[in-house]
Amino acid sequence: MTGTIFERTLASADVESAFAEAQVIVAMLAFEAALADAEADEALIPRQAAAAIVAACNGAPFDVEWIVGEARRAGALAIPLVQQLRDRVAAGAPEAAAFVHRGSTSQDVIDTAMVLVTREALGLIAADLDRLVDALAALARRHLETPMLGRTLMQSAEVVSFGHEVVGWLAPVVRCRERLRTAGEAALQLQLGGAVGTLAALGDKGPAIARRVGERLGLAVPAGAWHTQRDAWVTLGCSVAVLCGALGKIGRDLALLAQGEVGEVFEARQAGRGTSSAMPHKRNPVAAMVAIAAATRAPHLAATLLAAMPQAHQRGLGDWQAELAVWPSLFMSAHGAVRALADACAAGLDVDAARMRANVDAHLRAIGGSAAAGDVDAAARRAGAAARAQLDALEPLTRKPTP
Amino acid sequence: MTGTIFERTLASADVESAFAEAQVIVAMLAFEAALADAEADEALIPRQAAAAIVAACNGAPFDVEWIVGEARRAGALAIPLVQQLRDRVAAGAPEAAAFVHRGSTSQDVIDTAMVLVTREALGLIAADLDRLVDALAALARRHLETPMLGRTLMQSAEVVSFGHEVVGWLAPVVRCRERLRTAGEAALQLQLGGAVGTLAALGDKGPAIARRVGERLGLAVPAGAWHTQRDAWVTLGCSVAVLCGALGKIGRDLALLAQGEVGEVFEARQAGRGTSSAMPHKRNPVAAMVAIAAATRAPHLAATLLAAMPQAHQRGLGDWQAELAVWPSLFMSAHGAVRALADACAAGLDVDAARMRANVDAHLRAIGGSAAAGDVDAAARRAGAAARAQLDALEPLTRKPTP
Amino acid sequence: MTGTIFERTLASADVESAFAEAQVIVAMLAFEAALADAEADEALIPRQAAAAIVAACNGAPFDVEWIVGEARRAGALAIPLVQQLRDRVAAGAPEAAAFVHRGSTSQDVIDTAMVLVTREALGLIAADLDRLVDALAALARRHLETPMLGRTLMQSAEVVSFGHEVVGWLAPVVRCRERLRTAGEAALQLQLGGAVGTLAALGDKGPAIARRVGERLGLAVPAGAWHTQRDAWVTLGCSVAVLCGALGKIGRDLALLAQGEVGEVFEARQAGRGTSSAMPHKRNPVAAMVAIAAATRAPHLAATLLAAMPQAHQRGLGDWQAELAVWPSLFMSAHGAVRALADACAAGLDVDAARMRANVDAHLRAIGGSAAAGDVDAAARRAGAAARAQLDALEPLTRKPTP
Amino acid sequence: MTGTIFERTLASADVESAFAEAQVIVAMLAFEAALADAEADEALIPRQAAAAIVAACNGAPFDVEWIVGEARRAGALAIPLVQQLRDRVAAGAPEAAAFVHRGSTSQDVIDTAMVLVTREALGLIAADLDRLVDALAALARRHLETPMLGRTLMQSAEVVSFGHEVVGWLAPVVRCRERLRTAGEAALQLQLGGAVGTLAALGDKGPAIARRVGERLGLAVPAGAWHTQRDAWVTLGCSVAVLCGALGKIGRDLALLAQGEVGEVFEARQAGRGTSSAMPHKRNPVAAMVAIAAATRAPHLAATLLAAMPQAHQRGLGDWQAELAVWPSLFMSAHGAVRALADACAAGLDVDAARMRANVDAHLRAIGGSAAAGDVDAAARRAGAAARAQLDALEPLTRKPTP
Repeated sequence: MTGTIFERTLASADVESAFAEAQVIVAMLAFEAALADAEADEALIPRQAAAAIVAACNGAPFDVEWIVGEARRAGALAIPLVQQLRDRVAAGAPEAAAFVHRGSTSQDVIDTAMVLVTREALGLIAADLDRLVDALAALARRHLETPMLGRTLMQSAEVVSFGHEVVGWLAPVVRCRERLRTAGEAALQLQLGGAVGTLAALGDKGPAIARRVGERLGLAVPAGAWHTQRDAWVTLGCSVAVLCGALGKIGRDLALLAQGEVGEVFEARQAGRGTSSAMPHKRNPVAAMVAIAAATRAPHLAATLLAAMPQAHQRGLGDWQAELAVWPSLFMSAHGAVRALADACAAGLDVDAARMRANVDAHLRAIGGSAAAGDVDAAARRAGAAARAQLDALEPLTRKPTP
Repeated sequence: MTGTIFERTLASADVESAFAEAQVIVAMLAFEAALADAEADEALIPRQAAAAIVAACNGAPFDVEWIVGEARRAGALAIPLVQQLRDRVAAGAPEAAAFVHRGSTSQDVIDTAMVLVTREALGLIAADLDRLVDALAALARRHLETPMLGRTLMQSAEVVSFGHEVVGWLAPVVRCRERLRTAGEAALQLQLGGAVGTLAALGDKGPAIARRVGERLGLAVPAGAWHTQRDAWVTLGCSVAVLCGALGKIGRDLALLAQGEVGEVFEARQAGRGTSSAMPHKRNPVAAMVAIAAATRAPHLAATLLAAMPQAHQRGLGDWQAELAVWPSLFMSAHGAVRALADACAAGLDVDAARMRANVDAHLRAIGGSAAAGDVDAAARRAGAAARAQLDALEPLTRKPTP
Repeated sequence: MTGTIFERTLASADVESAFAEAQVIVAMLAFEAALADAEADEALIPRQAAAAIVAACNGAPFDVEWIVGEARRAGALAIPLVQQLRDRVAAGAPEAAAFVHRGSTSQDVIDTAMVLVTREALGLIAADLDRLVDALAALARRHLETPMLGRTLMQSAEVVSFGHEVVGWLAPVVRCRERLRTAGEAALQLQLGGAVGTLAALGDKGPAIARRVGERLGLAVPAGAWHTQRDAWVTLGCSVAVLCGALGKIGRDLALLAQGEVGEVFEARQAGRGTSSAMPHKRNPVAAMVAIAAATRAPHLAATLLAAMPQAHQRGLGDWQAELAVWPSLFMSAHGAVRALADACAAGLDVDAARMRANVDAHLRAIGGSAAAGDVDAAARRAGAAARAQLDALEPLTRKPTP
Repeated sequence: MTGTIFERTLASADVESAFAEAQVIVAMLAFEAALADAEADEALIPRQAAAAIVAACNGAPFDVEWIVGEARRAGALAIPLVQQLRDRVAAGAPEAAAFVHRGSTSQDVIDTAMVLVTREALGLIAADLDRLVDALAALARRHLETPMLGRTLMQSAEVVSFGHEVVGWLAPVVRCRERLRTAGEAALQLQLGGAVGTLAALGDKGPAIARRVGERLGLAVPAGAWHTQRDAWVTLGCSVAVLCGALGKIGRDLALLAQGEVGEVFEARQAGRGTSSAMPHKRNPVAAMVAIAAATRAPHLAATLLAAMPQAHQRGLGDWQAELAVWPSLFMSAHGAVRALADACAAGLDVDAARMRANVDAHLRAIGGSAAAGDVDAAARRAGAAARAQLDALEPLTRKPTP
């Protein structure tokens, strides 16, 4: 569907659909239709022309491969798309063709389309974050005082509880979910500025038309075009990258806990999951793998977005295009990870509390410490109390809104 | 002071001071002093011991070079620092030495110290952002309707106004300032968790002691240690990186406008500024240079922070340390850029409105368009109106708080 | 075909084909076929079984979407591929199914497949690099003494020649071509190690089988598996990234020279090329755009490869997979840029020598310098001599091999 | 000395010295002295003037803080340095002052100085790489057939030998050493181009003077200035980053092996090494930590170098400066890691072969496999043979040159 083959295996089918080529084209056409309608509402173009444009936008699927091929020469996907739209409109309503894309520019349709498909992707991420948060919160509460060996600098340290460890996974995810919400609200806005961002070709009707297009697409309308003001957009990207880092931490801990010699937590055994082409006994931690892969890629995807920010004057050359090229990969990678961890945690992690205890005892013996059971339990209880305090503090962010 | 030599020339002396080695050591000692005091308040350690510790923390400067040298072997700056502190305390009050650093861990003192020096750096950035915002807002208002050629994809496009261009610089900076404030509030918090983040060694008094330490240092106290919960901290780093991107856009535009063949805007001529070792006529755009350099470095510094997020279990090995190593560079780079642009804009950019107009006219002639003066002015007025709408929308974020 | 939609418009159709999903699957099957054949040659598996396996590999196309879908759960593309292959073999020759993939592991087939498709991509890059080198060398020689204004720190400086500028583009590209050749030779090698890199399941025949597989696939055979020895592979990736940087420099200079106010060099006007959806007069520098986009993305793609190097023990979890996910993007991006610049330069750049001279004269007037024509020509001749010295030094690298 | 405080603890004192501010200034003065001498040799400037310049360059240390401070305004370190040099020369030989820096430019002195200090750093890295290679080779040979559990995707897999694991560390390091040598030879060259890279101000004597300066400084002389041809330089940087990745893999494996539950390999216990401020029993793997930190930072440092490559025309604005700012951090980070691992391996890693065997047996029991001792030994022998083949193949790269 979209993305390179190995990238795809790390993403979900759903998020791939969100960024699929056909979907991006549909989103671009949704913009063109909304623009035509709004311009008719404001009497900038004839109502009949708008109707013809809207009909063409909603008609037979466009020729994606031709558009991509032409875009290579034209330098922007919008050029051949608008041309194809204009041709289709002209076929049925020759006089309407001139009103296609009126007063707009390539970046308007492309950025707005990216906003629309990104909204879908954020919705997918949010839904799976909810699942992940619920599963981790339940897991934490279940093991609030289950003794477990804490590890610092990759060395055995002192006793914590498994619930305390899980709260350390949960709390960042809860906060990331909140940040994504805020950053999404700020970034998911209409792009409409015309050739140089002033909406000059729409005369006095620019702001009114923008408002109407925003309403139709369900998007906030900013005070001005953000053609080369990428801060809100890139902040959203960074929020996704921070989420990937938080998920990567879960993945890394899961992988460490699932090592043969540690053996404390495993992803649930499922048919076809985590098998090996060479070793039948293997039960590879696939969700951890996907999360670590996302955390390995996200920093660099975010860095590209940041590096592409200094876009010259009214529209960037090369940097804006680089941003567009990597944007979907960041979200695909993130959703793949959220989905994988949510699935693994919702299916129930196999937690071996006895092994946790045995590892604690072995460590205490190794350092010649007292392995008094009471001390271990007391330490776990204290860790549980510390974990509970964090859970309570997260409460305002995790409470379900009353419907 | 701190940083490599070329890095230093791109930073300000002030921000260098904030992260100077001696300053980091002072901040670490401030933590140890506050901890001792708080523990005495809670009767965990004797009052006299606390007094001796506080006195040692506030006494003669510590031996930075020895500490750095030992830290190479120990693996953490806190080990030799605590040892030196303990030795000094022991010299005057042998019985107090055992109470140094009680119940804490290396990461507590190091992370909290980084929070303290980062607070200083953020203060510097905020102050210069205020100057930059004021200067840009004044510049935008002054040239709201000054005709200027808009440029898209590095090509001459249609008429905008210089005020419109400047609003495109200002608006992201204003929003970045707001984001920095929010991200700073969330991230500038006490780190105190003890060996494995449970404050186990402080018994029941952990939370109370944390509260007292936070009060003394003027830091918020989180619901739990954030040893390996780096999301709020890295989000702050990303906010700084987004700011650098926004500043880099200003730098790039300034550099483009100052080209000999364009000649529309220059940094003010000042003695010793932007000179050349080979060409006396040169007037290099130094503020633009510093901003572009910051925007070139920041994505990768932020990427390091993101890449270091998946820290194992209760304390990371190598990743946390990598984060610490690059953190100051990000802030030094950012403040260097804010300061340089604030200085350049506050000193007054040389704006050549006549040249702007001449470039517009030349372009219109070149494309065989009508160079009717009225059309140009009308387009500039429209751009001015679009710019004013953005300025108005920024008002809530730029209004000075009533004292 | 492969890649996200905007990524595709920055790549060439040819390089997309090289990394297309079907092509990766074909390459994986080529490995499985060669392995079976080699194992039969060494009498490890029956000749008939090998024949059945080879026939299945060369038979009807495999079901890519099913493989990708299963790979999401299995954690590796090789698992469902091998399963599908085994099923097909079993359908015709049940007794042969057990010999599929014998002694190999997922990473063997995946890495080798990546090597095979990368070889194709490198071939495409090399061919277009040859075109670019030839075009730039011709351009440099044509304008060896054409006076042009040198620019330093984005400011007018002293007179050079356009040929000197072009040699500054050419020389890095020539050296990059050479580095790619060397790095490719070192990296394009068979991966075959079995479960843990020791070829244990092949008994004493491991090395002989590896030699035979290598011969069949035309790949060098390393002294051992490079499952988690990624240095040669990542060095190849870095060479591609350095190439992108060199191409980005050409793109940036072209974009600067094509500015309306500078007007010295343009990409040749071609139908459908560099047009604007809003401004008919525009002639956007599309090749420069693609090159800059590649240079904006490549650093981060290379960073991902570098970040993924510390793969644990005998096979990485998450990092290897992240490497696989970004690898094609790097090569697609690079070939898109090489192709675009080669096309633009081979089509002939529009060089406006008169404008170059006029810009020199205007600058000399502006700084009150003597605009004596003789001085300008002398400076250009000197620049031409410096350029010629560089061209001569490149000779050993640019000379065509005698057939 | 140089670098931020936490960065310094991850570097060695030696490599810090190489990039220390005073050392960079000394290198810049070495260039100026060599230039003056060469120009006198070619009768471009009076012999006496050259003598005065050389004397001043070799005289009392320059005022680093003043130079850094002025460079902030001037935009380049070379401006105040040349000014200070000129003042000193003028004090004793007024007529010689005008000959300081004759025909050169800021970038000539800065780039050449960076080459000179980098040569020192590469020498340090090479020396410690030799130690590391020797120690790993000895370790591999000692444990060629010591049975050990192979681990793939962080899961127990099949039996290898510890020697096989170590060869997987060694081979990339050996190849990286070779690549560094080659890349260093290509990159460590004189920078001398004058204002715009044509050596115009040196008349016909440019090439001859360049040859003489190169001889004096022991640097290769390229066919032309590489002011904005950064490919060889950045390739060197990438080679260092690849080395860091290879070292990071060693660090990661060491950290995994030193886990309490695995307990197979430890860094040797040394006074003051790897202690904890909270837990006396700890023995943190400090060398692994430093290596992992380097591998975490290097990708982004390399990315900055790559991102800074597209430097405009004859000298970059902001990008070149960003490159200079991060360059030392990359080498400091790399040498810190090489030194730490060389020290740890030369001191002798504690290898617990019995524990390795016990872990193998436990795994075999867990999967219900036959734990027949003979099978384990046979697998280890096979792994040893595979390892020996790799060692033999490395022979040409590891053999000591006959003196």
